[in-house]
Amino acid sequence: MSYQFEAGRIYRMPTHFGPAPGPRQLPDDVVVDPKRSPRRLSVAASFRTDPAALERHLPEGFTLAGEPVVTVEFHHMTDIDWLAGRGYTMIWVGWPATFTGSRDRATGQFLAVVWENLADPIITGRCEIGHPKLYAEIAEPRRFNGAQMCAAGWMEFRFLELEVSRLQDTAPVRPATASDGTLMLKYVPRTGAWGETDLRQVTLTPSGDPDNHVEQRQTGAGAVRFHKANFSDLPTMHHVVNALAALPVIEPRGGAVTLSRGGKSYRDQRVLL
Amino acid sequence: MSYQFEAGRIYRMPTHFGPAPGPRQLPDDVVVDPKRSPRRLSVAASFRTDPAALERHLPEGFTLAGEPVVTVEFHHMTDIDWLAGRGYTMIWVGWPATFTGSRDRATGQFLAVVWENLADPIITGRCEIGHPKLYAEIAEPRRFNGAQMCAAGWMEFRFLELEVSRLQDTAPVRPATASDGTLMLKYVPRTGAWGETDLRQVTLTPSGDPDNHVEQRQTGAGAVRFHKANFSDLPTMHHVVNALAALPVIEPRGGAVTLSRGGKSYRDQRVLL
Amino acid sequence: MSYQFEAGRIYRMPTHFGPAPGPRQLPDDVVVDPKRSPRRLSVAASFRTDPAALERHLPEGFTLAGEPVVTVEFHHMTDIDWLAGRGYTMIWVGWPATFTGSRDRATGQFLAVVWENLADPIITGRCEIGHPKLYAEIAEPRRFNGAQMCAAGWMEFRFLELEVSRLQDTAPVRPATASDGTLMLKYVPRTGAWGETDLRQVTLTPSGDPDNHVEQRQTGAGAVRFHKANFSDLPTMHHVVNALAALPVIEPRGGAVTLSRGGKSYRDQRVLL
Amino acid sequence: MSYQFEAGRIYRMPTHFGPAPGPRQLPDDVVVDPKRSPRRLSVAASFRTDPAALERHLPEGFTLAGEPVVTVEFHHMTDIDWLAGRGYTMIWVGWPATFTGSRDRATGQFLAVVWENLADPIITGRCEIGHPKLYAEIAEPRRFNGAQMCAAGWMEFRFLELEVSRLQDTAPVRPATASDGTLMLKYVPRTGAWGETDLRQVTLTPSGDPDNHVEQRQTGAGAVRFHKANFSDLPTMHHVVNALAALPVIEPRGGAVTLSRGGKSYRDQRVLL
Repeated sequence: MSYQFEAGRIYRMPTHFGPAPGPRQLPDDVVVDPKRSPRRLSVAASFRTDPAALERHLPEGFTLAGEPVVTVEFHHMTDIDWLAGRGYTMIWVGWPATFTGSRDRATGQFLAVVWENLADPIITGRCEIGHPKLYAEIAEPRRFNGAQMCAAGWMEFRFLELEVSRLQDTAPVRPATASDGTLMLKYVPRTGAWGETDLRQVTLTPSGDPDNHVEQRQTGAGAVRFHKANFSDLPTMHHVVNALAALPVIEPRGGAVTLSRGGKSYRDQRVLL
Repeated sequence: MSYQFEAGRIYRMPTHFGPAPGPRQLPDDVVVDPKRSPRRLSVAASFRTDPAALERHLPEGFTLAGEPVVTVEFHHMTDIDWLAGRGYTMIWVGWPATFTGSRDRATGQFLAVVWENLADPIITGRCEIGHPKLYAEIAEPRRFNGAQMCAAGWMEFRFLELEVSRLQDTAPVRPATASDGTLMLKYVPRTGAWGETDLRQVTLTPSGDPDNHVEQRQTGAGAVRFHKANFSDLPTMHHVVNALAALPVIEPRGGAVTLSRGGKSYRDQRVLL
Repeated sequence: MSYQFEAGRIYRMPTHFGPAPGPRQLPDDVVVDPKRSPRRLSVAASFRTDPAALERHLPEGFTLAGEPVVTVEFHHMTDIDWLAGRGYTMIWVGWPATFTGSRDRATGQFLAVVWENLADPIITGRCEIGHPKLYAEIAEPRRFNGAQMCAAGWMEFRFLELEVSRLQDTAPVRPATASDGTLMLKYVPRTGAWGETDLRQVTLTPSGDPDNHVEQRQTGAGAVRFHKANFSDLPTMHHVVNALAALPVIEPRGGAVTLSRGGKSYRDQRVLL
Repeated sequence: MSYQFEAGRIYRMPTHFGPAPGPRQLPDDVVVDPKRSPRRLSVAASFRTDPAALERHLPEGFTLAGEPVVTVEFHHMTDIDWLAGRGYTMIWVGWPATFTGSRDRATGQFLAVVWENLADPIITGRCEIGHPKLYAEIAEPRRFNGAQMCAAGWMEFRFLELEVSRLQDTAPVRPATASDGTLMLKYVPRTGAWGETDLRQVTLTPSGDPDNHVEQRQTGAGAVRFHKANFSDLPTMHHVVNALAALPVIEPRGGAVTLSRGGKSYRDQRVLL
């Protein structure tokens, strides 16, 4: 007898061995504490760029919202419950946009690309959430010469450097922003009918993460540098890196280093129509 | 102006930077040679198990076909054109099954799970093909004491060992099998409506890979061992490994070491209905 | 003209490119802060064993001092000045011993073996200090199920697990011990005259590290497990791991998790005669 | 009772667990085949440079011999008996020199620096042989666009690229050279007496490696590029890389790709006086 999918349980490929453990579905006997897990060191820097250049990387239904400011954030996470206490790092690249659908309308940060240095959350995030995640080797953020320094690469090619220098203590709170949340595009191509689409949905992470508590925060001068690559350097993502490297840095918009604890599992993620 | 998807081109998340380079879509100026790329060292071992145990891991529409023999294959590939000459290793676990759909019927190897040690082909394979790929650290196959030895782990936990010993040269051809190809289940869960399904399709890689040429082949005694894990060891895939570890090895069915060159890109992958 | 060694400067192989930067010799323009660097998460567990078994691993001139208690410590360090803010982890295995030389006598912790997950400090420590350092893949210590868990392996073989559970807060001070410091044997074999010795010296790290400041400390139940290996698993160090795995755990002696900052460079290391 | 060193056996730190297994001392029950192990893919490129620049990196007693031609070689090795069939890659950088000692005189390749991507042979090579080995992340040599490409880095900083293009088959023999072998300087600094020296010896690997058999050989155009680094990029070896990056490439001298099997253990290494 073949197996049946259990109702109400999340599955991922391969589905043949039962519901899939992950951030949004843990074994019953695993105790989690969303007020403590994860520990997160976030290093972010922003710059104003050319709005026309940004718009070329917005999907249908999206328009820029407010200033064309790109933000790049490294989130070095440890103490992650769903990884049994292990950690990994993610990089978020986004800018503000408004989505206008047939039913829904939302304004927030458009998440253009994510890099992570662990395949497991890449798999869970892409298929469950629609996170546009790719793999990179990501150095643990380091403090040197009074600056917080981050870098990402792939097979010896360092394609991204981010630095926040001249750091000064500030109030340990995340700056308030009027936002509906984070917007992204979940997409799956059609197998066999190459060039066609199986799934294309705008998904939203609503604002608000009440379990996240900022412990320390510093602000400073931010610098972001994407390095142009060729096919030989980055055969699967030179087009992504080069598009970002081509965005002009018209004005740096500062950076921040934030240490926080706790956070949600994105079970509140939803599809916009 | 937001971007438009170009007709006839394969996209993957993130879609915002243009069509996605990968095994089935290379930049125009990249010269490929499917008769030479990749170089592939394949190490395989099989065992007969309990048919009832196997059936519990077959999705709806599938039945066992012939003997309940599980085959585990390590494919260590180098000289991969679409990775600009780099390589990676994949592990295939499968057994023979027949799919009977509303329109199609096919008998072949059911691909239950794949592990790979590089995230890029995991991403391309999962979303374009429906390959049930997970990540593992995979040691390069090594020859020691007259045996070919393979191992896979995740974060210090070695969950799979495979060995082919008492190797003897044999004719450099792949044994012929009457098969329609390799069968798998492409699956994407629905975001927000947790437990529901966005995509569930049986896909088939048709038999035949005319560009693949076997250069050397040896056969011998095969041994496969999956190691039982707990949540703390393998938080995202203990259920997969434990299901395989629970399959009784009723009779070993030998192993083989095959060195070959060339191969197809799976552009012939198609959906069965 | 060949080069001359500069007087008073530390060199390491290769010596041909000038004095070697490292923990005890930094470029003049690099600002260091030994009160802040490194940040160190230490996880330690001890057990009482058979004194006769331990003595078999003490070099000439050494005797056991006090109870035969083996301590295994993981030190996960970040913010290391001499690595420009990067980090690594070291594992120390030792027990108390007295060295009686022709001139000197010292009692302290005998450092039997060290593992580290970065080659650079292995090289500097072995040749400058006499640290008996080997390489291991070392997982970042993780907190799971109320326990602090550590593991080390080599090429998929996990040879050491350490856990401190039932953690309770305690005073943030390092327990005082009457000790002259840490004792080790610096050894270099003679090239060509195989089996002969070029260098064999007892070296001492004196007690006292005034810049190290404990920020948090917890104690709990400790558990240490070395896994027996064969040549195929650990070809260069099965003898080390197996000797430690053979030590009977007669009585666990507890564990501790300590978070501290700052520390010395071991410039105070000296040779005992 | 403390342990005694066994006569005639090679020890390395830590010496407390018995003689040290390694390339020159294997357990009795391990069968080795120096005609088959290792398999070696060697990629080399050379360039003529300024003799005065090279001389500044020759130790006392050495003079340049013949043309000031620097050769950089990547040796990607697999099937290594003393690693139970595993592999690693080494990079050799050298140029021709003559050593004139108080007793001995030898002319050959002066081995200025070696990088390897595995700590175990770094440890054995530095202390047993005097190989000036450092650690690097080294990509497996890849073939792309008709060229063989190699790269090395450290923590995301790619400091060396080597390419041999326009490859043409040539006779599968290693070109004969009149040489006494490979020359290097074994050096150990004195602990505590910082700036003083414990060991400084010229060592020689005699020419001749009768078990090494060339299976394929191609020659082509060679290109070598060292990338200038600062302390933050390469805190322990920027001085080495920058010295090599500063050598002018006056004339490229071609490259070669060689596939071979077998080789000696360097038990014939000896000290020159």
